Amino acid sequence: MSILIKDAIILTQDNEREVRKGDIYIEDDAIVEISDRIKIEAEYTIRGKLVMPGLINTHTHLPMTLMRGYGDDLTLEEWLTTRIWPIEKKLDKRMVEAGTRLALLEMISTGTTTCSDMYFFEDTIASTCKEMGMRCFAGFSIIDFDTPEMKKEMLLPECEKFIRRWKDDGLVTPVVAPHSTYSCSPETLQKSAELAEKYDMMLHTHCSETRKEVYDVVERYGVRPVEQLEKNGMLTEKTVLAHCGWITKEEVRQIARAGACVSHNPVSNMKLATGGFTPLPELFDAGACVTLGTDGAASNNKLDMFETMKFAALIHKHHRWDAQIVTAQQTLDMATVNAASYLGINAGSIEEGKKADLICLDTNMPNLAPMHNPISHVVYAASGFNVSSTIIDGKPLMLEREFHYFNKQKILEDAEKAKNELVSD
Amino acid sequence: MSILIKDAIILTQDNEREVRKGDIYIEDDAIVEISDRIKIEAEYTIRGKLVMPGLINTHTHLPMTLMRGYGDDLTLEEWLTTRIWPIEKKLDKRMVEAGTRLALLEMISTGTTTCSDMYFFEDTIASTCKEMGMRCFAGFSIIDFDTPEMKKEMLLPECEKFIRRWKDDGLVTPVVAPHSTYSCSPETLQKSAELAEKYDMMLHTHCSETRKEVYDVVERYGVRPVEQLEKNGMLTEKTVLAHCGWITKEEVRQIARAGACVSHNPVSNMKLATGGFTPLPELFDAGACVTLGTDGAASNNKLDMFETMKFAALIHKHHRWDAQIVTAQQTLDMATVNAASYLGINAGSIEEGKKADLICLDTNMPNLAPMHNPISHVVYAASGFNVSSTIIDGKPLMLEREFHYFNKQKILEDAEKAKNELVSD
Repeated sequence: MSILIKDAIILTQDNEREVRKGDIYIEDDAIVEISDRIKIEAEYTIRGKLVMPGLINTHTHLPMTLMRGYGDDLTLEEWLTTRIWPIEKKLDKRMVEAGTRLALLEMISTGTTTCSDMYFFEDTIASTCKEMGMRCFAGFSIIDFDTPEMKKEMLLPECEKFIRRWKDDGLVTPVVAPHSTYSCSPETLQKSAELAEKYDMMLHTHCSETRKEVYDVVERYGVRPVEQLEKNGMLTEKTVLAHCGWITKEEVRQIARAGACVSHNPVSNMKLATGGFTPLPELFDAGACVTLGTDGAASNNKLDMFETMKFAALIHKHHRWDAQIVTAQQTLDMATVNAASYLGINAGSIEEGKKADLICLDTNMPNLAPMHNPISHVVYAASGFNVSSTIIDGKPLMLEREFHYFNKQKILEDAEKAKNELVSD
Repeated sequence: MSILIKDAIILTQDNEREVRKGDIYIEDDAIVEISDRIKIEAEYTIRGKLVMPGLINTHTHLPMTLMRGYGDDLTLEEWLTTRIWPIEKKLDKRMVEAGTRLALLEMISTGTTTCSDMYFFEDTIASTCKEMGMRCFAGFSIIDFDTPEMKKEMLLPECEKFIRRWKDDGLVTPVVAPHSTYSCSPETLQKSAELAEKYDMMLHTHCSETRKEVYDVVERYGVRPVEQLEKNGMLTEKTVLAHCGWITKEEVRQIARAGACVSHNPVSNMKLATGGFTPLPELFDAGACVTLGTDGAASNNKLDMFETMKFAALIHKHHRWDAQIVTAQQTLDMATVNAASYLGINAGSIEEGKKADLICLDTNMPNLAPMHNPISHVVYAASGFNVSSTIIDGKPLMLEREFHYFNKQKILEDAEKAKNELVSD
């Protein structure tokens, strides 16, 4: 397959963060050429857009689109115990597939080209991502409870099978995802870490999302969550820590020393009123890798990474009474190059030889006019709805807001049906 | 003109906050009938949407779209002195018109049906709103400096002429808008208040946006901004106070007692890192009227009231560590019924006899599926881009995202040209 993008404004996100004009030629899964004028016939031609690397969402729970708007204005604990957990018990493969398809449709239509998921039925999620063409780090959840899918003692052995099944796939990368330090025993954490190490896979876990969680872990184990992860082999240079809203300066240093990565989820944290906030400036200063996530649609309530970028930049300005503390460029870096580099994918910037994971924005829209500064526009003025085309692994999954490989209507209807089954008595 | 909306889910925002299904029939500027099935032929027919009152933006500076993205990541003071004020000096009528048109295009396309503006060249802004069909409370700025339009001593007499010219218009309502307590002397405030009283017009001013402003006013006048307004006749039941981020509990009580209205602008306040935050729960408890605004596009950087609703609900949950403190319903009320009631327009809810200021959302989109709760979807999951049709005063300004009365392309091009003139040396 070949795609030619003509007359683009390109936010390269290369080392110089160059913004340039030019054409881009894509063949198969790669960006082959970027230059002032390319005269090649391609299968698809796109004209006159703002082109940027696709956004990378490092923490989500794809099937939770089915619970979008089912229980708002509740604390995390109430939300989980009275709303989410009771209906999660009813989930089956078919519903998970319907919810995942809806999530991918939303992500593709709003410019996300890679996601890092963790949930139950992860094999179903992985297959759905593969089939729809989403690059996915699929986190197989490990937890000390029975899940809607299987008994707890089956989780680690099934996770190993899952890794073997997916480890050589080009689009889906299996990840070991012990849920958290409050829901996994030290033994479970250790075994998860060993499993990840055995296959050289990544780890993904929740860390210090709420204050209660921190003090529960301190009470039970005498250490805070980050130290608990470290003690049990989970704090590695291949670990994604979601949230980190309640970490100390010492934990910031531990994370940076270990080379772990933080996934900051501002919208979900604010909506659930988790109170504490990921200390971005301190993490930056310590040299830690920081990326962005939406969390699941049930606590966000959407999966639009443009919105997440804006919330991320603004909440920290507000928090520190400092309008310069997290800039537009730093925010865009978190959602593109930082995440790609941490996850080890040859994407996140638009350069020859990189994977063709990129998006085109229609700047001919009121909210992106006039054009002073494209970086500013992308972070502060754009919406996922400005995305006109989404290309993942060289495949044009959306072109001029039309989906070429899947039936939008059927996906929306299936999700509605699955939701009705979930909430029926 | 007549419009029939068939098979709608209607967020009525009536006294019972009823959500119902049905048809809506609009004739001329009014909602004539709402019932289960209406069999009337109408000029326009819309089908199967979520219908809600149009959103009301109570604080903006329309022409500042021209400065969208021109100077980000700066404090309010730096932003004003190094970026905004130097180029504002170059503004002329033609540029103001171009910027206003762009703002209205953006607002209409994202579901705003009434705005409360304040700027220079307000007569030009008023005419542009009238021509494009936007319901506007046009605030003629009064300030103790010469403006790009006229000498300071001309402002009050010109404002009076402006009031006479517009006071009987059905779409544009003139408003007296002294800029703030730090930029207007007591005498200017008093004369503004007298002028408003003489014609029974509303007042609109900035109030306690930054901490510096508060302490400057305290140092100069010995009282805080709200008391300074009260002392000078400006705190009335027809006053809109933008921001109120740094007000005390006593000022909350003063505002409520006077029956003044607060316009909360969360996105702009966060972006400019003004630090303090409008005390919504205390204002609600005191019975004050609270509404929402975007502020100008230069400090937001868009004019999407859906985004503003989400920021408003989430920042307070985060601030108070309480997910219930500002609910989806309260947020929607601020942006619809509260504002309409304060401004004295017969709109803000969908009921027979009300003005036809309403919007239709296309729920057949990934971010609004599945449907558990439409109020939740509107506040937490929707974007202005979900708006498919916008009707103001019974006129369908946007239908299925097409503009029927103006040339989008020309508006975008004129704004780009005006911007180029503004930033050229």
